[in-house]
Amino acid sequence: MRKIDRQMDFIIEIDKLKNVFRQSLISDGSRHENDAEHSWHLCMLAITLEEYAEEGTDILKCIKMALIHDIVEIYAGDTYLYDEEGNKDKSEREMKSAEKIYGLLDESQKEEFLRLWREFDEGETKEAVFANILDRIQPITLNYLTKGEMWIKNGIRKEQVLNKAWRVFKLAHPDISEYMMRIIDESVKKGYLMP
Amino acid sequence: MRKIDRQMDFIIEIDKLKNVFRQSLISDGSRHENDAEHSWHLCMLAITLEEYAEEGTDILKCIKMALIHDIVEIYAGDTYLYDEEGNKDKSEREMKSAEKIYGLLDESQKEEFLRLWREFDEGETKEAVFANILDRIQPITLNYLTKGEMWIKNGIRKEQVLNKAWRVFKLAHPDISEYMMRIIDESVKKGYLMP
Repeated sequence: MRKIDRQMDFIIEIDKLKNVFRQSLISDGSRHENDAEHSWHLCMLAITLEEYAEEGTDILKCIKMALIHDIVEIYAGDTYLYDEEGNKDKSEREMKSAEKIYGLLDESQKEEFLRLWREFDEGETKEAVFANILDRIQPITLNYLTKGEMWIKNGIRKEQVLNKAWRVFKLAHPDISEYMMRIIDESVKKGYLMP
Repeated sequence: MRKIDRQMDFIIEIDKLKNVFRQSLISDGSRHENDAEHSWHLCMLAITLEEYAEEGTDILKCIKMALIHDIVEIYAGDTYLYDEEGNKDKSEREMKSAEKIYGLLDESQKEEFLRLWREFDEGETKEAVFANILDRIQPITLNYLTKGEMWIKNGIRKEQVLNKAWRVFKLAHPDISEYMMRIIDESVKKGYLMP
């Protein structure tokens, strides 16, 4: 099998990400957002907010992480951030899925994508930190815009949002963390999020 | 107004791209694809097929083009590639839209995005050539996977596809142009595309 055939098989298979739906609604509240749209939106955040990344952050690498970070959900499904039960075996399910999907590619590309995905998940490098910040900004903003419909439906409290977000936002540029705290406080004030 | 507020207003406004639907169906044929998903898919093509770009191509710039190339369609709407009438005033409609959407940002970011969009449209630089190649690969592949449903519905002939695609594919790496010619010929053989 030629390399281009394997690569195009991968491109075709990942089209399925357009059918993996997330908890978040899109901004007009008309439907749930899918992982492909979400990933595009993170990349747009990356190129728009690039100036707030720590000095020396490789934005191309951040974008690669944002592009691929949810691809494992094609077989593993989306696990809601606040679903404690589902998060217990998330890692194992996603690892199997990663082997399957990236296994469509040759060894070196498979390794590159697996490495990027692991790095994003570990959240230690500059690039992973920035990508994780974007991955928290996006759903919180959508929840705010849709009047907290999914937060309310899932009974989410401010404390839960902060628990997940704060370890990320404390590493963000103050302009970003202040903006996000404003959105969260406003959400509580407007009744979108339980205090 | 603080810069971060303007940038986040832009991020929120472009969420509307998730509601701009294209002619292409997603690979399972269940519904039309939207511009946000399409843009993500182009970026995945960019990082997967990077090795076939002309030497010295700046992949980050290609990705930026892929991310933003359809944003003007938020107000201008999607114009079908084979719609000769709609393509007459496309440029004017899109220019107005670009001023409006990128005008949410400050002058320097607005200029950066406008420049990238124009460069993509003109298709002259290495980066624009590669991004345009990806932008032809993706819908043709989806049309093939969905048994040409939209080609058939719109009465599209092989000649029309080649007219639009060939000026792009003749600049592509032979592995890519051969793969695409195979898909197009196969489509004719299977009756997805009129000879």
